[in-house]
Amino acid sequence: MRIGLIGLGKMGANLAMNFKDHNHDVLGYDLSKEACNSLAEQGIRIAENEDQLIQALDKPRVIWLMLPCGNPTDSTIRMLSEKLDDGDIVIDGGNSRYTDSIQHAKVLEKNNIRFLDCGTSGGVSGARNGACLMIGGDQSAFDHLKSVFEDISVEDGMIYTGEAGSGHFMKMVHNGIEYGMMQAIGEGFQLMKESGYDYDLVEVAKNWNHGSVIRGWLMEIVQNQLEQDADLSDVVGEVDASGEAKWTIETALEKNISMPVIALSLMARSASKDHEKFACKMVAVMRNGFGGHNVMKKEIGDTVE
Amino acid sequence: MRIGLIGLGKMGANLAMNFKDHNHDVLGYDLSKEACNSLAEQGIRIAENEDQLIQALDKPRVIWLMLPCGNPTDSTIRMLSEKLDDGDIVIDGGNSRYTDSIQHAKVLEKNNIRFLDCGTSGGVSGARNGACLMIGGDQSAFDHLKSVFEDISVEDGMIYTGEAGSGHFMKMVHNGIEYGMMQAIGEGFQLMKESGYDYDLVEVAKNWNHGSVIRGWLMEIVQNQLEQDADLSDVVGEVDASGEAKWTIETALEKNISMPVIALSLMARSASKDHEKFACKMVAVMRNGFGGHNVMKKEIGDTVE
Repeated sequence: MRIGLIGLGKMGANLAMNFKDHNHDVLGYDLSKEACNSLAEQGIRIAENEDQLIQALDKPRVIWLMLPCGNPTDSTIRMLSEKLDDGDIVIDGGNSRYTDSIQHAKVLEKNNIRFLDCGTSGGVSGARNGACLMIGGDQSAFDHLKSVFEDISVEDGMIYTGEAGSGHFMKMVHNGIEYGMMQAIGEGFQLMKESGYDYDLVEVAKNWNHGSVIRGWLMEIVQNQLEQDADLSDVVGEVDASGEAKWTIETALEKNISMPVIALSLMARSASKDHEKFACKMVAVMRNGFGGHNVMKKEIGDTVE
Repeated sequence: MRIGLIGLGKMGANLAMNFKDHNHDVLGYDLSKEACNSLAEQGIRIAENEDQLIQALDKPRVIWLMLPCGNPTDSTIRMLSEKLDDGDIVIDGGNSRYTDSIQHAKVLEKNNIRFLDCGTSGGVSGARNGACLMIGGDQSAFDHLKSVFEDISVEDGMIYTGEAGSGHFMKMVHNGIEYGMMQAIGEGFQLMKESGYDYDLVEVAKNWNHGSVIRGWLMEIVQNQLEQDADLSDVVGEVDASGEAKWTIETALEKNISMPVIALSLMARSASKDHEKFACKMVAVMRNGFGGHNVMKKEIGDTVE
């Protein structure tokens, strides 16, 4: 099938090659010339701009977006809603918030353009070799593209979840769970490292990957990473959060569902990036206020981190 | 090898059959006649009492304990410390607290009896078909039994971790991680169930088991369990905690390590068993006290849960 692919970052570029492996005719586009050139060298045709991409596709056009969520996806969908025709299909394969996807479906539906929100898991290697897809949106669009989805996903790694938004909702929860699992693993390994025993953490991860209850892909990643640097001495202990766990918790608050572990796994990331630690300063001065406990002061000449 | 196995519960019974599959000569014993008879029917020889078991073994004797932690393991090790001979080997394959294992090693060492603390993961199916073993304690005892450990574990699923206590410490942390991962998965599935979307949770788990970041054995268990009852309508939402996560957090407190997610995953289990919910009552009456907010009262004739 001929597929227009907008967004050729890490995920998009690997997806393009995955499409190509399955004999789909990919026409790519990205704002970054570098991303376009790199993929052109690997045999992917590149459009000069979005208009050219749209014109080069057969109807019903199939345009797959692999863009950062928020503005980049939002503005591209608004542009497409004006330039595409009845029955064309837009797939958002990125990590849009599900409430955005519900809006995107409505914007496109006004012009009879079909929409699918496709949560994509499995990381970069999954995008390249077989992803895990969670797809909501227009049923006829899904049916039209079912074999394409099957081509680029692992066996049994594709699900159609119903109305628009339900694919990205499921991916959001997936990532929320992922945050909690990762934080639990991180905490456990810190205790192992500070145990006083002389564990070889690579061997620990390898052991836990073979027959244990906590074996799984995350533990395999841990083993691979520790094999490259068992002390993580070059790694800064700060973790970004890209949105999904925050949306998971916001959704839990709306629905009055208790999700303490996922909430704290997100807040642990916030704490990791908080150099000022004002809450801790507050606690320190209160201890000083009632009990005369020592407060550590910055020395003159210290730079504020 | 001839192995004495004391403790023929779920884990011990399956381990006995695993030993047998690998042509080890198991002599079992359990306080429960029923457990003994059940295993005898499957071709495992049973000793009439612990003394007979000890007498029937060749030196250096190898006695594997698969008993509940605390008193049962403790008292059995004290008994063995008096009845075994120089060079005999005791393996604690249960979930003893690592600090107990350090003590057990000392008690046995006084009489020149060698000790191994062997954390055993992989659940009942692992005990039967190939476990994940984390083994601390006497190096010469480990060397003597290495091929036995290899026989009953999955490939690469055996690690020797050094001094006594380090095997059960590693198993403790493994279980702490397990608590956090399980709670994160549980929270995510509750949000999926209450999402307002019409997800088939069996299909969700199946999808997440194929190519996703959160794939692993726990998600496979989730899929299997939901296939039997997708609503879990027959399950009471209360979860026991068997000790390891508590010890993990106690150890974190001793070492001043922050482990919020594992701590809260344990406390979520405590909350699940707390029918009185006194803290919530306190919050309700305080809201009433300052803001006149309604407090739900038990009606006359209500039984206290």
